[in-house]
Amino acid sequence: MNEQIRLPGPTPVPPEGLTAQSRQIIGHREDDFSKLLVRVTENLKKVFETKNDVLIFPASGTGGLEIAVVNILSPGDKILSVNNGVFGHRFRNIAKTFGAEIIDLSYPWGQPCNFVEFEQTLKKHPDIKAVLFTHNETSTCVQNNLEKAGQIVKNHNAVLLVDAVSSLGGLPVKCDDWNLDIVVTSSQKALMTPPGLAILSVSPKAWKQIRSSSFPVFYWDLKKAKKYYDERQQTPYTPPVSLLYALDMALKRILREGLDKVYKRHKLLTKALRKGMVKLGFKPFVPWEIASYTVSAFYQPEFVGYSLFKEHLYKKYKIHFANGQGNLKSKIFRIGHMGYVSSNDILKTIEIFGKGLKDFNINTDLDVALSDCKEVLRGVEEYV
Amino acid sequence: MNEQIRLPGPTPVPPEGLTAQSRQIIGHREDDFSKLLVRVTENLKKVFETKNDVLIFPASGTGGLEIAVVNILSPGDKILSVNNGVFGHRFRNIAKTFGAEIIDLSYPWGQPCNFVEFEQTLKKHPDIKAVLFTHNETSTCVQNNLEKAGQIVKNHNAVLLVDAVSSLGGLPVKCDDWNLDIVVTSSQKALMTPPGLAILSVSPKAWKQIRSSSFPVFYWDLKKAKKYYDERQQTPYTPPVSLLYALDMALKRILREGLDKVYKRHKLLTKALRKGMVKLGFKPFVPWEIASYTVSAFYQPEFVGYSLFKEHLYKKYKIHFANGQGNLKSKIFRIGHMGYVSSNDILKTIEIFGKGLKDFNINTDLDVALSDCKEVLRGVEEYV
Repeated sequence: MNEQIRLPGPTPVPPEGLTAQSRQIIGHREDDFSKLLVRVTENLKKVFETKNDVLIFPASGTGGLEIAVVNILSPGDKILSVNNGVFGHRFRNIAKTFGAEIIDLSYPWGQPCNFVEFEQTLKKHPDIKAVLFTHNETSTCVQNNLEKAGQIVKNHNAVLLVDAVSSLGGLPVKCDDWNLDIVVTSSQKALMTPPGLAILSVSPKAWKQIRSSSFPVFYWDLKKAKKYYDERQQTPYTPPVSLLYALDMALKRILREGLDKVYKRHKLLTKALRKGMVKLGFKPFVPWEIASYTVSAFYQPEFVGYSLFKEHLYKKYKIHFANGQGNLKSKIFRIGHMGYVSSNDILKTIEIFGKGLKDFNINTDLDVALSDCKEVLRGVEEYV
Repeated sequence: MNEQIRLPGPTPVPPEGLTAQSRQIIGHREDDFSKLLVRVTENLKKVFETKNDVLIFPASGTGGLEIAVVNILSPGDKILSVNNGVFGHRFRNIAKTFGAEIIDLSYPWGQPCNFVEFEQTLKKHPDIKAVLFTHNETSTCVQNNLEKAGQIVKNHNAVLLVDAVSSLGGLPVKCDDWNLDIVVTSSQKALMTPPGLAILSVSPKAWKQIRSSSFPVFYWDLKKAKKYYDERQQTPYTPPVSLLYALDMALKRILREGLDKVYKRHKLLTKALRKGMVKLGFKPFVPWEIASYTVSAFYQPEFVGYSLFKEHLYKKYKIHFANGQGNLKSKIFRIGHMGYVSSNDILKTIEIFGKGLKDFNINTDLDVALSDCKEVLRGVEEYV
């Protein structure tokens, strides 16, 4: 790849995913399509680590969150929102828009959730119908403890709705072991497929609540999607066939590499990137203990504004990275490292930031940064 | 193309559309994406023949119809549904699902709408907020008179919501001249792009009603989509980038060929197909006067069941066509001929059906059918 696409999504698509899309379209009511859909769905279940239903819709991650909410909801339902960033807040706002009564557990951006308070709130309000939880908060690059959230919610009536958009495929999301009721992800993050597919897993506990939900659904109807899949291995409405070709390839790649190795690679690449960036003088936005392994945030250095910095690095070195969002705009910048990303991409990224600093007359020891980085990367089993 | 994809959608994607999708992903918050989105949007406006806003969402056609309905609606609103097939009925059911009070003008499948009754109904109910109208009813292969619908609705308070999913790009849809308030189409029909994009045009009259609608919207919010497009030339949420690459190519192809020639080609291919099929002994489901120019229906011959017939033709000649839907299942079959389709495809189709009949020991004069067909096709200005 000539350009470093280090966005937190869409992420680079591997060559076989790009090529797959140039296959001619097949009809979605024909057997060949059903075979594709079943293979993709079964492979998704392996990555979701679940026996639950897994259903695919044409949408981005936000669309996927909306699908979860409108299917589970009856207007006036009490919903607990645990949020500490832009995407947690968005999940909350979707539920609010469609008539939920929200109980807010908001934490400062860049800080973790308080699980004691979380559990107390659930106990205090036994009528809470659902909990909205963001696994990997892309806006702050914080990894929230999903396993713990699952442990807490499983003993309550509430269902756990998980935003795993920027985690699934890069961080373990053990749907069944962790009691995750609805897990939402999308194609364009760690699943390294072009944007346009939202994917949801749905547990028996969630189905029970979906069946009693009174909010109207038509295109987003999970029950209808399950019925079509179970009875005909089809989708109710025309699916994005060419994106499924690409997702098919991506899932095969993930499973060939092996989930454990995929997760280890993501963790080590993160560690290496942080080590190198710190050596160059950048300050991570959050401590390692709560850091995401799919996207990393660093404070924008004070000697230069974000726009000029980004523009210079893009123009001279062809690297794409992202600004902070909301209140963090221009205060932090974010580097994506999920999906189709290798040790070499991390080294290249460090090299670009090191050279970039030099261009602004900031002295750093790029060689030391790179060798620190390489030290960590030694643990990565490369997968091409 | 080795296979004849004669489905009513998804339709074959031209080579440059297939290749375009194998381009690496670009970030949707970057300038390159905005340039692409603006070019695609401006070219869509040319095909919609409109100065209205044109907005793109990740969805199929049904999703697009839902977007139109939920944005325009306040629960309890009176909505007039003019329908004569599966898709008209679906449009109606979407509005009903989200709380509209439906006034039904249902016509037998395969028959046209009664415009006198249509106008009288609008006059009788001045509180009708919206009219749902299907331009090209894919299930029966009937072309409803959209220009007339526009003429009638423009003098009323109601807004006209048009399902142009299987027409736009194959039949003229003159949004501005015909006073069409919201026109919905999708990528995978005459726009010869893979499925996954719903496209809507929105008139000032429609915006007025959208601004006063009380039904909750979040992901489907047209106002937010317009704001993002106007202010930043972006979409509110991650768009299907690779599908936009393909749509870009398809629109360039349509505009290079020229709208008038595209429409003439669709009409003549339909005429030629009907002539050839009739000569082979097939009976069209609807008369020429109301026939669609993008998809044609013929009665299933009585000597063989649909499944066996279809399976034989597919296995031996690699042609894909579609069954009837709903009550017409196995009574008619449908041949799609929209988008990337040439005279040669029509001749090939006639040849396959002729040979297929022979395989079932039905005598027909294939040569005469082909020469009748060629006679009509002489008028087509081929575009490769």
